[in-house]
Amino acid sequence: MKLADRVARLGTETAFAVSAEAAEHAAEGHAVYPFHIGDLNFRTPSNIKQAAERAMHDGKTGYCPNAGILPLRETLADEVSRTHGMKLTLENVAVQPGGKPVIQKFLALLVNPGDQVLYPNPGFPIYESQIEFQGAEAVPYGFVPGSENFLLDFEALEHAITKRTRAIIFNDLQNPTGAVSSRLEIEAVAELALRHDLWVLSDEAYWDVRYGDAALSIASLPGMAERTVILYTFSKKFAMTGWRLGAAIGPKHAISELAKLNVNQESCTNHFVQWAGVEALTGDQSSAGKMLSSLKKRRDVAVSALNGIAGVSCYSPSATFYLYPDITEAMQIVGAEDYDDFRLAALHQTGCSFCTRLHFGRPQAGEARRYARFAYSGISVEQISEGLGRLKAWVEGG
Amino acid sequence: MKLADRVARLGTETAFAVSAEAAEHAAEGHAVYPFHIGDLNFRTPSNIKQAAERAMHDGKTGYCPNAGILPLRETLADEVSRTHGMKLTLENVAVQPGGKPVIQKFLALLVNPGDQVLYPNPGFPIYESQIEFQGAEAVPYGFVPGSENFLLDFEALEHAITKRTRAIIFNDLQNPTGAVSSRLEIEAVAELALRHDLWVLSDEAYWDVRYGDAALSIASLPGMAERTVILYTFSKKFAMTGWRLGAAIGPKHAISELAKLNVNQESCTNHFVQWAGVEALTGDQSSAGKMLSSLKKRRDVAVSALNGIAGVSCYSPSATFYLYPDITEAMQIVGAEDYDDFRLAALHQTGCSFCTRLHFGRPQAGEARRYARFAYSGISVEQISEGLGRLKAWVEGG
Repeated sequence: MKLADRVARLGTETAFAVSAEAAEHAAEGHAVYPFHIGDLNFRTPSNIKQAAERAMHDGKTGYCPNAGILPLRETLADEVSRTHGMKLTLENVAVQPGGKPVIQKFLALLVNPGDQVLYPNPGFPIYESQIEFQGAEAVPYGFVPGSENFLLDFEALEHAITKRTRAIIFNDLQNPTGAVSSRLEIEAVAELALRHDLWVLSDEAYWDVRYGDAALSIASLPGMAERTVILYTFSKKFAMTGWRLGAAIGPKHAISELAKLNVNQESCTNHFVQWAGVEALTGDQSSAGKMLSSLKKRRDVAVSALNGIAGVSCYSPSATFYLYPDITEAMQIVGAEDYDDFRLAALHQTGCSFCTRLHFGRPQAGEARRYARFAYSGISVEQISEGLGRLKAWVEGG
Repeated sequence: MKLADRVARLGTETAFAVSAEAAEHAAEGHAVYPFHIGDLNFRTPSNIKQAAERAMHDGKTGYCPNAGILPLRETLADEVSRTHGMKLTLENVAVQPGGKPVIQKFLALLVNPGDQVLYPNPGFPIYESQIEFQGAEAVPYGFVPGSENFLLDFEALEHAITKRTRAIIFNDLQNPTGAVSSRLEIEAVAELALRHDLWVLSDEAYWDVRYGDAALSIASLPGMAERTVILYTFSKKFAMTGWRLGAAIGPKHAISELAKLNVNQESCTNHFVQWAGVEALTGDQSSAGKMLSSLKKRRDVAVSALNGIAGVSCYSPSATFYLYPDITEAMQIVGAEDYDDFRLAALHQTGCSFCTRLHFGRPQAGEARRYARFAYSGISVEQISEGLGRLKAWVEGG
């Protein structure tokens, strides 16, 4: 029995294969240092779990409104108004079963087959997959090394715009680089969107995973609120990845249609989980701060250790829990033929499991440097030191 | 800012407007008899809630596999193998955040733009909406009155098949009619699917809401397992509508691609809710039986009361919690001009709130009889008697 033609255009997160290989290596009795895991090894704060239990016992187990329960929509509108300096009401908010559904719905709602969508590459691989699955053309834009972290390759971005360009996916506090855009950079993207009348998906999955100054959202710049949909998620800030709770936040007419996609696709997000979301935003916030300071320690240890390895060079990002070191020379030192060769050799020789550039969208022509992504979300400071110590010994002994 | 063209083809569940009107009438201080509500007013059984709590405290709050946790996939494979007389393994099962996602994913995975999809009309309105939103052509098939309930209009169904027909949506234990197909009827649909090489979506949302004999699934007939995707849901049997837990069950190659849609659209279904699903299927089953016997009492009272109203004629369905009475003469008696006129007059004169044929797909040319849908899922026996007593007084006094 044949599948639909569009299935041939459907991508996936190839990083799952990395997890499987790591699990296999561990099952053979070897130590594995899990730098591939983008999930947090922190527990969801107790007050949030208790709120879910209370709601469950209060009978919040039946259907609820498609766009989300009113208290959560209101709380989210208030929260994002405050953090972004915007004026939002509950009509700007449609609750989602996670942040990821916003990507699919943004594209289904706003982009026609044949339209072009600009997306970051390297970047979250689902952008490319969903753009193409839904029949649009995925046009990549990249990054160039800067003094403190990668910078948007703005010239390439600008040149990529055509009459068919319909939308741009923008992921400040970026996966995999951890880069935070400057105000100038964000303003330049906004200016492009205004000049070419583009929709913007502002993927803010890591908005709250910041070690430095307050972030600036492209949605808050003049003229942008009416053309920007924010991907909001509870996953990272509150260690709620497996709860599946997020929201699409944008202009009212788009959100009202997006809520019709909720009706069509999933009816609503789990009812009592939404009450837990209200508690997450309004209750005790101390857990989020503790988690951030743990993550920051891990970052510092990992960045320092990576930079201590011959042929590896790594920025110290002020956001996310990802590092994206340049490993070009390290690959040469160990004589690796390609990304997978290096990655698998590292796993088998040292137990260090990580993703490479290959897991963040199709590589582009002319890429001269080689990169890997080390996540420190699911690994302890001790494991970081030990694992990267073994990696250093392997590279430098090779 | 313009939306995508396909948004013009996106439908919704218009029954939500009925809920809003009922709420408004109630807010004005009037009694409302909620025959419009398709949600259950039963609590989720305690053992299921406790299992969710245990899982939450055991740390099942991070990401889990995209296709679902292995214990739930295995348990579902065993359960459906047993109830359907099939041989399924976990590779036939992809867990979903509800039953509804299976409709969208079935169509995205198996149907090309321009293909025709046969769907029941009157039927669940999301079939029509999703078929058209995804660029295929929605071809309705209807029902004819039989001796015990409606029968599939098989002749019309057969004539509707063309070279472009790609799939058929089949909803035995039907919403809104409550009809259960005979073995002959199911075999005839299966024979059509085999002869014309069609995919089948077997929407089994009401599989367990049966008062009579065991149901027969079209998926279990010879040659059908490889072309049928079952929509499975925990919503009705376990009063878990707001939990959002279901599954797509079908041939391995399709389910494996469908799980890639999980990766792309929502990552995974809530982790601890899946553990509650394992308990629902393997733990104490007494609550489901109690709920069914309550529902059966409501059905008997409602059917008898409806048939006692002049100009109303209603079957006694042996499944679902819906009644689909013929109200043609009652509409004439009260001088109603059209469906909405009758429905709103009934609400304002008697407090009875219900859906009509208009809420179950676009009406077809030449429909001579008029129907309403009375749900007894969210209303007590006392309210049924009182409400339908007032409806009778209004119709017969008119």
